[in-house]
Amino acid sequence: MGDVSANSGKHRVVIIGSGFGGLFAAKALSGKDVEVTLISRTGHHLFQPLLYQVATGILSEGDIAPATRDILARDKNVRTILGDVTEIDVEGRTVTSHSLNQATVTPYDSLIVAAGAGQSYFGNDHFARYAPGMKDIDNALELRGRIFGAFELAETSTDPEDRERLLTFVVVGAGPTGVEMAGQIAELSHKTLAHEFRHINPRDARVILLDGAPQVLPSFGDRLGGKTRASLEKRGVEVQLGAMVTEVDGTGIEVKDKDGTVRRIEAMTKVWAAGVAASPLGKMIADQAGAEVDRAGRVHVEEDLTVKGHPEIFLVGDMINLKGYPGVAQLAIQGGRYAAKEILGRLEGKEPQAPFVYKDKGSMATISKYSAVASIGKIKLTGFIAWLAWLAVHLMAMVGFKNRISTLLNWIITFVGNNRNERATTIQQVFARRAFEDLGPNAYPELPRRGHEEQRDAS
Amino acid sequence: MGDVSANSGKHRVVIIGSGFGGLFAAKALSGKDVEVTLISRTGHHLFQPLLYQVATGILSEGDIAPATRDILARDKNVRTILGDVTEIDVEGRTVTSHSLNQATVTPYDSLIVAAGAGQSYFGNDHFARYAPGMKDIDNALELRGRIFGAFELAETSTDPEDRERLLTFVVVGAGPTGVEMAGQIAELSHKTLAHEFRHINPRDARVILLDGAPQVLPSFGDRLGGKTRASLEKRGVEVQLGAMVTEVDGTGIEVKDKDGTVRRIEAMTKVWAAGVAASPLGKMIADQAGAEVDRAGRVHVEEDLTVKGHPEIFLVGDMINLKGYPGVAQLAIQGGRYAAKEILGRLEGKEPQAPFVYKDKGSMATISKYSAVASIGKIKLTGFIAWLAWLAVHLMAMVGFKNRISTLLNWIITFVGNNRNERATTIQQVFARRAFEDLGPNAYPELPRRGHEEQRDAS
Repeated sequence: MGDVSANSGKHRVVIIGSGFGGLFAAKALSGKDVEVTLISRTGHHLFQPLLYQVATGILSEGDIAPATRDILARDKNVRTILGDVTEIDVEGRTVTSHSLNQATVTPYDSLIVAAGAGQSYFGNDHFARYAPGMKDIDNALELRGRIFGAFELAETSTDPEDRERLLTFVVVGAGPTGVEMAGQIAELSHKTLAHEFRHINPRDARVILLDGAPQVLPSFGDRLGGKTRASLEKRGVEVQLGAMVTEVDGTGIEVKDKDGTVRRIEAMTKVWAAGVAASPLGKMIADQAGAEVDRAGRVHVEEDLTVKGHPEIFLVGDMINLKGYPGVAQLAIQGGRYAAKEILGRLEGKEPQAPFVYKDKGSMATISKYSAVASIGKIKLTGFIAWLAWLAVHLMAMVGFKNRISTLLNWIITFVGNNRNERATTIQQVFARRAFEDLGPNAYPELPRRGHEEQRDAS
Repeated sequence: MGDVSANSGKHRVVIIGSGFGGLFAAKALSGKDVEVTLISRTGHHLFQPLLYQVATGILSEGDIAPATRDILARDKNVRTILGDVTEIDVEGRTVTSHSLNQATVTPYDSLIVAAGAGQSYFGNDHFARYAPGMKDIDNALELRGRIFGAFELAETSTDPEDRERLLTFVVVGAGPTGVEMAGQIAELSHKTLAHEFRHINPRDARVILLDGAPQVLPSFGDRLGGKTRASLEKRGVEVQLGAMVTEVDGTGIEVKDKDGTVRRIEAMTKVWAAGVAASPLGKMIADQAGAEVDRAGRVHVEEDLTVKGHPEIFLVGDMINLKGYPGVAQLAIQGGRYAAKEILGRLEGKEPQAPFVYKDKGSMATISKYSAVASIGKIKLTGFIAWLAWLAVHLMAMVGFKNRISTLLNWIITFVGNNRNERATTIQQVFARRAFEDLGPNAYPELPRRGHEEQRDAS
């Protein structure tokens, strides 16, 4: 196996993950007297808060996923390698990563684990096939194929029931991602696509936002939740709360309401924006260190983000269970920076920092163009003002000047022109097609085999 | 089966294909007293001349593949449907298309077939797995994954021979697409990626442009071919002419030189930019009409682009064999417009047009940024002037204002900043990985299975 450490004798920091936590940790260690290796299984830094815009044709994957290597090109003491981490040896202090059949073993003196979280279906993994999550670029592109594909199929469908199923979109989970997806699908059907079809009217599409909770955007408080709901409904989204999903299949979704009634919604396109599970690397470390892990796979870390008995291992972001802090980008950013500072402080012989405290910088969600909600401490904003705040904050938070420019341009195209520049679907269509297989082979008569001439020859 | 014709009593024109030929035919029929149905198996109009920029991270797929439905939204007498044409019944005058399990039968009074061409491996279809072509968005994104992926794997490789294989790129075919790909890969390794790696030097990459012909860009004439060759070589591309490819496999390519020597080039990444085969729909029609088809699947059409004995069927672009006309975008555009005009003329009782004559508007190819070659009639341009001409012509030729703006912005990012905005790879990585499987399972020791804790439990 390849040991790629440079053996410079410097303190070796390994960072796992190129999300917010990993990237901000790497940047905080840049130019310092340490040797940093960032290991990630993707080559890009994903700006996850805008993933829904890739799914709905506003942004390209490049806009929200700049190459990590490019971002860190000038940070000469940081090395980036592509690899899926398959083993962390807590005693031996090595990380083994896997890139195809190449194994790389990287030793560390300090380790920052920022591997994030994946989608959770709460033990119903078979839902995934029918209701893709919203965690990575592939999810977003698959959903793009499914959403635009549903309208395409509805246009040529001759069965009224199929057409209705194809034009029904269910978003599960009324957190920010769910709200944003539902708002965008409604906007697509009412604005962008409104005049593009001849046999269907895209405005007939039903967009349903479901959640088991009694409220939309629970973390934003009652008032904003209520306003968001009203705003979504005004835009044609049906909001169904207190509704638990009990089953998902190819042609629909089964829901149990608060009163115990079980009902079925016929819908070809389902989006899963509910539930996350931390990266299994958390449990891998916790099991070796004897630390506790919660049901979502998050590790109960010490107050300085380290793992029990291992002051050299830091966990950040979505992977930690600490004081009820929410799994948002800011938690990862602040954690990554805190860990980096602590590592540098130790090398300089400084006293440990005060325990990690998450500073809430507020939350925001867009509802549609020109309309958003924002909760920043005691300040609650809605409508156009909130949307302007959302615009400014997201543009500033993006990493890389060129991505900001490119994103801004695509926003102008979409917000001013009602257009979407990024509707092309690719091999994801193959996956998107899984969504429609369940129309059933008998829904339409079998087609003649390709090769008309063979039939002629035979006759 | 669904018959989706509106039965308005108007003359029904069916167009197959949303490329240059199909789209320009549809635009020429827009607003006229005919009922047009455009059937395509992709939802987008692909601007194929810039596909190489998607493959090398400059443009997003949306930049060069706007939704056909969007382009034609205001052309109210044009209906767009997604479907793979599986049958054309020349006698019955119907086109059957297939979208998943939905079959749609569309009757026509006039038919314009503009289904283009796919890649041809000259009977060696097993090359395709190892050397993707350059015909569609998926090709381009797979190649993007392979090219950037090769550098990533080289960075963690510990075997010098593997590293060399990974950093060797072979482009087969020295026409415009091959020249552009080779130039871009060289530019990637010498500029964009030059400072992003720590263990490899991307400048060590070998880029080889191969062709069986004795010259680069044969259709541009001797002088421009020679200049292009010199310019590519100055930029680090090895040009190998008179070299026929005899075999392609996972780790390399076998070549027979003019003198009969057979040699092997070890290279993980191969690009196939040689040879096209017309859509099989050409042969399907020709077989029914008794028309001749050449070895590349192109139909020998009449002088007015119709098929023998069927004045109601027009073939355009890459699908025709007529007077040696080249398979370029302009042939399709001019053919699509000619066919549309002829159909309208007949309805108005006009005399047939003069036979179709292709007007050569010139050819262009970029070599690297600020450098191109252009052949426009007797005018031959090279270098910066040619590059400016290329820039202007391509921007003007793109369909859709927003794509032009977005493309221009990405060009500024790339040409001024040496950066590339669109490096994100997606599910295509799965396909791209096929390129590297052949490093062999024994090239690196097997990895321990995921789940460190299981080993612990067992011990």
